[in-house]
Amino acid sequence: MNTFGRNIRLSIFGESHGQGIGIVIDGLPGGIKLDIDRIEAEMKRRAPGRSNISTSRKEADKVEILSGFVNGMTTGTPIAGVIRNTNTISKHYDKDLMRPGHADYTAYMKYGENRDYRGGGHFSARITAPLVFAGAVAKQVLEKEGVFVGAHILKIADVADSAFDPVNVAADELLNISKKDFPVIDDEKGGLMKERILGAKNDKDSVGGIAECAIVGMPPGKGEPFFGSVESRLSAMLYSVPAVKAVMFGAGADFASMRGSEANDEFYVENGAVKTYTNNNGGINGGITNGMPVLFRAVLKPTPSIAKKQRTVDIEKMENTEIEIHGRHDPCIVHRGTVVIENAAAAAALDLLYDKF
Amino acid sequence: MNTFGRNIRLSIFGESHGQGIGIVIDGLPGGIKLDIDRIEAEMKRRAPGRSNISTSRKEADKVEILSGFVNGMTTGTPIAGVIRNTNTISKHYDKDLMRPGHADYTAYMKYGENRDYRGGGHFSARITAPLVFAGAVAKQVLEKEGVFVGAHILKIADVADSAFDPVNVAADELLNISKKDFPVIDDEKGGLMKERILGAKNDKDSVGGIAECAIVGMPPGKGEPFFGSVESRLSAMLYSVPAVKAVMFGAGADFASMRGSEANDEFYVENGAVKTYTNNNGGINGGITNGMPVLFRAVLKPTPSIAKKQRTVDIEKMENTEIEIHGRHDPCIVHRGTVVIENAAAAAALDLLYDKF
Amino acid sequence: MNTFGRNIRLSIFGESHGQGIGIVIDGLPGGIKLDIDRIEAEMKRRAPGRSNISTSRKEADKVEILSGFVNGMTTGTPIAGVIRNTNTISKHYDKDLMRPGHADYTAYMKYGENRDYRGGGHFSARITAPLVFAGAVAKQVLEKEGVFVGAHILKIADVADSAFDPVNVAADELLNISKKDFPVIDDEKGGLMKERILGAKNDKDSVGGIAECAIVGMPPGKGEPFFGSVESRLSAMLYSVPAVKAVMFGAGADFASMRGSEANDEFYVENGAVKTYTNNNGGINGGITNGMPVLFRAVLKPTPSIAKKQRTVDIEKMENTEIEIHGRHDPCIVHRGTVVIENAAAAAALDLLYDKF
Amino acid sequence: MNTFGRNIRLSIFGESHGQGIGIVIDGLPGGIKLDIDRIEAEMKRRAPGRSNISTSRKEADKVEILSGFVNGMTTGTPIAGVIRNTNTISKHYDKDLMRPGHADYTAYMKYGENRDYRGGGHFSARITAPLVFAGAVAKQVLEKEGVFVGAHILKIADVADSAFDPVNVAADELLNISKKDFPVIDDEKGGLMKERILGAKNDKDSVGGIAECAIVGMPPGKGEPFFGSVESRLSAMLYSVPAVKAVMFGAGADFASMRGSEANDEFYVENGAVKTYTNNNGGINGGITNGMPVLFRAVLKPTPSIAKKQRTVDIEKMENTEIEIHGRHDPCIVHRGTVVIENAAAAAALDLLYDKF
Repeated sequence: MNTFGRNIRLSIFGESHGQGIGIVIDGLPGGIKLDIDRIEAEMKRRAPGRSNISTSRKEADKVEILSGFVNGMTTGTPIAGVIRNTNTISKHYDKDLMRPGHADYTAYMKYGENRDYRGGGHFSARITAPLVFAGAVAKQVLEKEGVFVGAHILKIADVADSAFDPVNVAADELLNISKKDFPVIDDEKGGLMKERILGAKNDKDSVGGIAECAIVGMPPGKGEPFFGSVESRLSAMLYSVPAVKAVMFGAGADFASMRGSEANDEFYVENGAVKTYTNNNGGINGGITNGMPVLFRAVLKPTPSIAKKQRTVDIEKMENTEIEIHGRHDPCIVHRGTVVIENAAAAAALDLLYDKF
Repeated sequence: MNTFGRNIRLSIFGESHGQGIGIVIDGLPGGIKLDIDRIEAEMKRRAPGRSNISTSRKEADKVEILSGFVNGMTTGTPIAGVIRNTNTISKHYDKDLMRPGHADYTAYMKYGENRDYRGGGHFSARITAPLVFAGAVAKQVLEKEGVFVGAHILKIADVADSAFDPVNVAADELLNISKKDFPVIDDEKGGLMKERILGAKNDKDSVGGIAECAIVGMPPGKGEPFFGSVESRLSAMLYSVPAVKAVMFGAGADFASMRGSEANDEFYVENGAVKTYTNNNGGINGGITNGMPVLFRAVLKPTPSIAKKQRTVDIEKMENTEIEIHGRHDPCIVHRGTVVIENAAAAAALDLLYDKF
Repeated sequence: MNTFGRNIRLSIFGESHGQGIGIVIDGLPGGIKLDIDRIEAEMKRRAPGRSNISTSRKEADKVEILSGFVNGMTTGTPIAGVIRNTNTISKHYDKDLMRPGHADYTAYMKYGENRDYRGGGHFSARITAPLVFAGAVAKQVLEKEGVFVGAHILKIADVADSAFDPVNVAADELLNISKKDFPVIDDEKGGLMKERILGAKNDKDSVGGIAECAIVGMPPGKGEPFFGSVESRLSAMLYSVPAVKAVMFGAGADFASMRGSEANDEFYVENGAVKTYTNNNGGINGGITNGMPVLFRAVLKPTPSIAKKQRTVDIEKMENTEIEIHGRHDPCIVHRGTVVIENAAAAAALDLLYDKF
Repeated sequence: MNTFGRNIRLSIFGESHGQGIGIVIDGLPGGIKLDIDRIEAEMKRRAPGRSNISTSRKEADKVEILSGFVNGMTTGTPIAGVIRNTNTISKHYDKDLMRPGHADYTAYMKYGENRDYRGGGHFSARITAPLVFAGAVAKQVLEKEGVFVGAHILKIADVADSAFDPVNVAADELLNISKKDFPVIDDEKGGLMKERILGAKNDKDSVGGIAECAIVGMPPGKGEPFFGSVESRLSAMLYSVPAVKAVMFGAGADFASMRGSEANDEFYVENGAVKTYTNNNGGINGGITNGMPVLFRAVLKPTPSIAKKQRTVDIEKMENTEIEIHGRHDPCIVHRGTVVIENAAAAAALDLLYDKF
């Protein structure tokens, strides 16, 4: 199903080379002022065609809001945002050659002959543009409630950025990183990351990485036990971002080698608020926010579209063959993907914030 | 919300020290024969009180099926399974002292004064018993369709088991591991893991670990793009298992340092079927199964209940204080948690299998 | 799917002659005091075996609450209520003879050979007992918010009770009617209705009727446009009550012959509140409550179980044959059905009340 | 929530005087050929501005399909259909005067100051155009499965059309009626109905009526018990059509005065199929289809927009005042509403058809 959310409901649609892509956002209250310039700036952060480390396909990614928004304010009814596809070249896509690492084969098995295979169709990372629109709207709503979401590139190939301070990460830092062209904490490391990307591009290859995301200001008591846990709902959203293959909260994989006495976040009272000295649990206990920063990391696999020759099958002939992927592709999806993750997380965070009791 | 699933619907309820815990399973067709002995055996795998590496609380975890099941066959209407709590000692639980790493504080913030705090209430790992019941039912339904689910302990503390062969892991191996008391591939490593558990217990502490799970025989084309992806739906289920803090599919975190040419799973045709030479993507492309084994790992944090003294707050007095957790606790949740993960994954896999087209 | 609700979630299960029937209620906040005596009194209103105008099957319909309720208060987690079946006689039910007007044939087509056909199985009106439990809980929660739900028998056969005053119907009147053994406004008409029931019983036949229900005190602004309209959500609930075949809001079918100038409810201001002079729209405009009493009528068909000889088919032999239905049956379902409708409406009203903005 | 459906998912959006209105349809399989001319013809049936018995606002109601549809075939991914608003005159709408019978007041209470009040905003009957698009798509999919949906005007004011034959109504008859400009069985009665409409218009008033709808060819066994009943799901959809205030299945309100022996539809076998001699239950037993025609009637209230002076309130000043509604309005919504009901029912019928077992 193409819908997400309990309190806000997102419905996504579109294909990379179709008429348009978009999203319907339902459940926002009326009377919320939205700054369209900021939404456009957010769209631009994800948009392709801006540098040599991304695809050269240029798309303005201008969102037309069809409904639910009048005189700069939400009306309370569903907001539909539509983005036109304007710059498509379909000739590089062969209907019958299954690109390894892509959804070509699985789409064929699910939808059959008539799937839209051009540019990856509905499975294209391009369809994350509507998610960014939803996140850009959500971020403005969250900010009015004192909640801020931000992400940076934690790792590309072998180059690691500094990590967020799990206890003290704050709104200012998140806003600052969001303003950077290449969202890292340590710009020197950012420079090295770009080198790795260009190196891979030069080798007709691609690289993967990790995004780290923080949600600060989320009040304690949000989320629900079991299937409605904060981790369940955030990961369900994050795993809808193409290329994400691992999601880890707080200390994540490190928990495996910790002892309870190290892993537990001890509580203390300060100025009438309960806090924890450490934040290994990423701001979540028992699936519910505890008021500390919500922290997670998402691993993005290297872009599957590479120019190197690969073995594959011709699905029509059911024969083994080879493929070289030409056209315009990202040698690394992590920097644009980090923007998507930040915004996808914001959309899910708003859904959590609206949990009722 | 306490419900999970699109095609089958699970509704879970219960508290650790309440009258009973249980689950309603809706959406199974009529006429499926269920072997109750196998369900009981599965319940026993998770049940507490069986050895010195688990809690000493003894519970038979006998499931009474109230509906939807007549003469050994499903009727097609909802199956309600209820488990009585029979062995509860509530005196060790102090309503006002928030146990670090537990949901005491978040439950207080969400539900207020009247939450059931005894034994962790609804947040107790005990509530995974109904999930195992649902999984035990699901596994039998899946098997009739040629789908098998199994899990082993991949790591406890610093001791690692061998990993599943991502391409060749098969039903037999999964069934064999499920029969072991301590589900590992390499029993020698299993012995070392038990030593680590007892070592931690001796230190009034606890240890964490990783479970690895495989679903084999899942046909290609299951799952949906975006919010209905296999990863989204499996992780939403897995993160409802208390203690799970990271979920990683296929190569997981390793993708971050791979190049596309390494990460992509190249296709080939064999006997009329499309397969991949490698399985870094864990049997999932674009959120949809590709017919290869579905593989994931879940990190379980160390049990938060430890006898060591910890700093915490008295929530009634809003004062800093200390806590030593007595009562009967697991020094490690990973071995029992691996059984839960296997069964929770089976429940989610059945939901995926019933995707329609 | 066996679940209902957006803000509270109901999951129902059970068969007439199985081990037990029940419901899980999720989404109530913690700290709500529930009066168990009142819940039991409500259960008794619906319970069978109390007089010669109902079935002689005696069932205590005692609800055991397994979870979510401690020391007389809700805890905030799911409440599971279970009712045992204690008085079943299955010998009168022939698996192969399809009872006209019942779900025997459709259950066979949906679930196949292994459906539970005894006593109508999951389709028995007995499964409304859990709905009454949910409604009895909901009514207490609603009352704390100043919302009251009540229903009376508007018609049985050719005998009509007085109707509610659409503008002035109030909580007191609803509470008074709920206390009556036979819920009518005009007891004399009630006496005539009972005569009609006994007359039909004497003729080995049954009679139908209409229930009228009012929800007063519901604040304006509840419900949502389109698929979330008050009418959509109430009718979706009401049509899950067996025997209901028509649901009509406000002036209902009379709208067909009205003119706009008669049908429109004109507004006026009184003491700072907006009201309407008339209430043809049953308290709902555009799918959303307007603060006036919410009013609807539900038509209940005559009990299909009649002792008269009827033509039917033997589904095993696929042959035409005849059936006479013996056993213990209600010659009229309207008086017990009115209690069910009142409580089902209360459950749906609580879901509406929790709409967020 | 703006979404409907379990197997197909509809997400609706738009306002009468906004940029555009539309719907996203998710869940159709790939490879279904859709005839766009037939969809456009269906849109035209509902479109305004075609005669003196409807509003004079002219809208082409041309649907642009943005996604999920390539080369005349569905791709299997979400279909987004968008309709531009081209002919809006907002000057007749006063933000502060609450039009009786409309959603002005309830929208104000729900959404506040910033609702889009122009032309009724999201509550305008104009938003049924996307529903007709969804229905027009659904009808083509249904037809390939042998299922046909059709509706006629059963009544306007005091003039009644012939009713469908509940047992023998067939696809041909439904297709023929759909082709009529004014969908009635008896055209003479249709002429009288138009006279009533023009009479009301002349009196600055409006009239209501009843639509009757049939779904033929639906296989037995569709729908689910309780909250998933055919009646629950159809009525939830129908009550999202503005002006619908009553929905009645089969014999509907007549059941109240019937005896069981009259109401029950006796079964017989014919050519290996089970049928019923009568069809009082409207093709539904126990909430599940029995293979006979599914039949229901929906009552539409008279258009609330009338030129006659009415009493109302100024919501800003909170004062009593009067209103005369000018602008372009339908003196009767029943003939256009019947088209909407037919298509809304088709959308819900497709959702039912896709029920799995």
